[in-house]
Amino acid sequence: MSAKKIEGQPAQDSWLLTPGPLTTSLSVKQAMLHDWGSRDERFIALNARMRQRLVDLISGKGQFTTVPMQGSGTFAVEAMIGTFVGVKDRLLILVNGAYGKRMAKICDYLKREYAVLEWPEDRPVEPKRVKDALADDKSITHVAVVHCETTSGVLNPIAEVASLVAGAGRHLLIDAMSAFGAIAIDSGKVPFDAIAASSNKCLEGVPGLGFVLARESALAKTQGNAPSLSLDLFDQWQNLEKTRQYRFTPPIHCIAAFDQALTEHEEEGGVAGRGARYRNNCRILIDGMRALGFVTLLPDEIQAPIIVTFHMPADPKFQFQTFYDKLRERNFVIYPGKLTVADSFRVGCIGRLGETEMHAFIDAVKSVMQELGVASGAPARRAAE
Amino acid sequence: MSAKKIEGQPAQDSWLLTPGPLTTSLSVKQAMLHDWGSRDERFIALNARMRQRLVDLISGKGQFTTVPMQGSGTFAVEAMIGTFVGVKDRLLILVNGAYGKRMAKICDYLKREYAVLEWPEDRPVEPKRVKDALADDKSITHVAVVHCETTSGVLNPIAEVASLVAGAGRHLLIDAMSAFGAIAIDSGKVPFDAIAASSNKCLEGVPGLGFVLARESALAKTQGNAPSLSLDLFDQWQNLEKTRQYRFTPPIHCIAAFDQALTEHEEEGGVAGRGARYRNNCRILIDGMRALGFVTLLPDEIQAPIIVTFHMPADPKFQFQTFYDKLRERNFVIYPGKLTVADSFRVGCIGRLGETEMHAFIDAVKSVMQELGVASGAPARRAAE
Repeated sequence: MSAKKIEGQPAQDSWLLTPGPLTTSLSVKQAMLHDWGSRDERFIALNARMRQRLVDLISGKGQFTTVPMQGSGTFAVEAMIGTFVGVKDRLLILVNGAYGKRMAKICDYLKREYAVLEWPEDRPVEPKRVKDALADDKSITHVAVVHCETTSGVLNPIAEVASLVAGAGRHLLIDAMSAFGAIAIDSGKVPFDAIAASSNKCLEGVPGLGFVLARESALAKTQGNAPSLSLDLFDQWQNLEKTRQYRFTPPIHCIAAFDQALTEHEEEGGVAGRGARYRNNCRILIDGMRALGFVTLLPDEIQAPIIVTFHMPADPKFQFQTFYDKLRERNFVIYPGKLTVADSFRVGCIGRLGETEMHAFIDAVKSVMQELGVASGAPARRAAE
Repeated sequence: MSAKKIEGQPAQDSWLLTPGPLTTSLSVKQAMLHDWGSRDERFIALNARMRQRLVDLISGKGQFTTVPMQGSGTFAVEAMIGTFVGVKDRLLILVNGAYGKRMAKICDYLKREYAVLEWPEDRPVEPKRVKDALADDKSITHVAVVHCETTSGVLNPIAEVASLVAGAGRHLLIDAMSAFGAIAIDSGKVPFDAIAASSNKCLEGVPGLGFVLARESALAKTQGNAPSLSLDLFDQWQNLEKTRQYRFTPPIHCIAAFDQALTEHEEEGGVAGRGARYRNNCRILIDGMRALGFVTLLPDEIQAPIIVTFHMPADPKFQFQTFYDKLRERNFVIYPGKLTVADSFRVGCIGRLGETEMHAFIDAVKSVMQELGVASGAPARRAAE
């Protein structure tokens, strides 16, 4: 990685070290300075290119199709579950954080049969337990898993899970929201029916569009499943194939920005290049914070280079809201914790950020700690050791 | 109206004379050149202001709340029906075009009980028939109507319908998508429970956000109704009230643009000012086209100043696709017809367009007709008279 400053934010905007919305490049945002009709041939071509590029990211040509879905990433996840899991099916949901739990909540709303396998938030899902559960319950037809659980930042072993689900003759649905585009998934090696993600995570577009990459042979069997017109992936797919247009007004500007974001993703070297920058960001972040006494929730081997959870420091002079506000004054936005297992906060390392910004962030943390008179970021347990 | 050219499109962009996506001002698009965190106090304040401004447009303060909904306008309509019409309710849908039919399709998906009253696409709904239907069927709890049916451009008599629905003790849901912000609805005079619209019609924001203006006392009774997590207006409302934040990533840039669009709406004189410009646009369009022999589908008294349907000309030298393409070369985008009753095409008069653009459009039509050797836009019946 070069240390070149990444062009992105106008001077007054903060750097967003969050799970999203993220910092995007200025050129991505500038792609929104035009209006197109949704039937305009140029927009139709742009949209078709966007759909094909996403398929290419999983090496899915000829097997997979992109079904874009207006709304946030959760809309795409709900559309995936509602379209793929029929009323006679049963979904096994692997839960180790808030996003796994959200899929269970979606099933409650959609009145879909499901079972849950649960792990603590600081642990990845275990393929062995999944294998046993599938052997024990023959009524399970589908399995759903989150690739990177943003709750903690833990990376789940998607390839092993996919392999055993396929081996057991079941269908896999993946919520890859926060990892897609930075952590490789090759559909030729990792078998699944559908994967949901969005324009505004590692692909560095603006929020407003989710998408599902669906195996065409599986999607073709889902007609009549969806309990929502808006979120019916089958209907959205059929209409896009037949007319090349959306059923309902697409977020034109967001899609134009997404197309530019995909160009910049390619220019950076695709998933490998994007992932390398984020791993570097993550390394600078963790090394820098550890040097200041902070302790990560997760051991490095299960830490995804997406978002890092830190234990709350023990020093009573450290108040999170003050820490947050003073970082904000220095133009860095971090994120509160979402854990039930420990008091914590989170710092993202995705979006249009590079090593210059990550080093500047560590400097800002140092300066805020000095201002607060906090000598170390060490949490209670460590402090007591 | 001054004849001052409205600043909007960069030179290469077309003027969109369509039902949306529409032409927006450059300043609205420029509001998207920043990234915010969704927990940023400035964004939270902007979002709260946007919600309040929309309530003010219907003079609904203290009675109504804005529930924004990610996605297109149809997402907001589906959310409105799914949240307000419970499993034990029955919805009467007034249909005189594609958008009324779409509400029936939504009920099929959501498995909600409904009945349909239907009129031809070139006729407004008739309050008398609605009154009789409500008297005849006591099981009907809710009525749904489209304010301006974009299929033809017909304006439905919303005040009379609202008054009789309230008189019959039923609840009214309005799809005001294509008219909201240009045709006044005063919630103090027109009784209804909810009205759905979007950022990208007469309010001249960019597409990506729908919203429902809901009577709080009615919305408070809808807990548990919605068959979708993403489209649950009650849950979205509760979360916005409690945390001032969205449940799921909001389309930050689209909302920032919408806030700017609402400022420009106010500066233009609100609903009255916006409506006056559109009525002037519509008058220039209809007068200019009639002078060229074209015939409108609708008589002027039921024509909304939103989009105008013209009968297809009889002259065999007039081919719609060629006409469309040649107008497109002249930087004007029009819209195909959606009617089942007659062969037609449509021209919108909403979006960031003023009399300069409408006169330029008429000149472009003249020039294309000369190029095609078409002497008159008169349709078959008129030509035969």
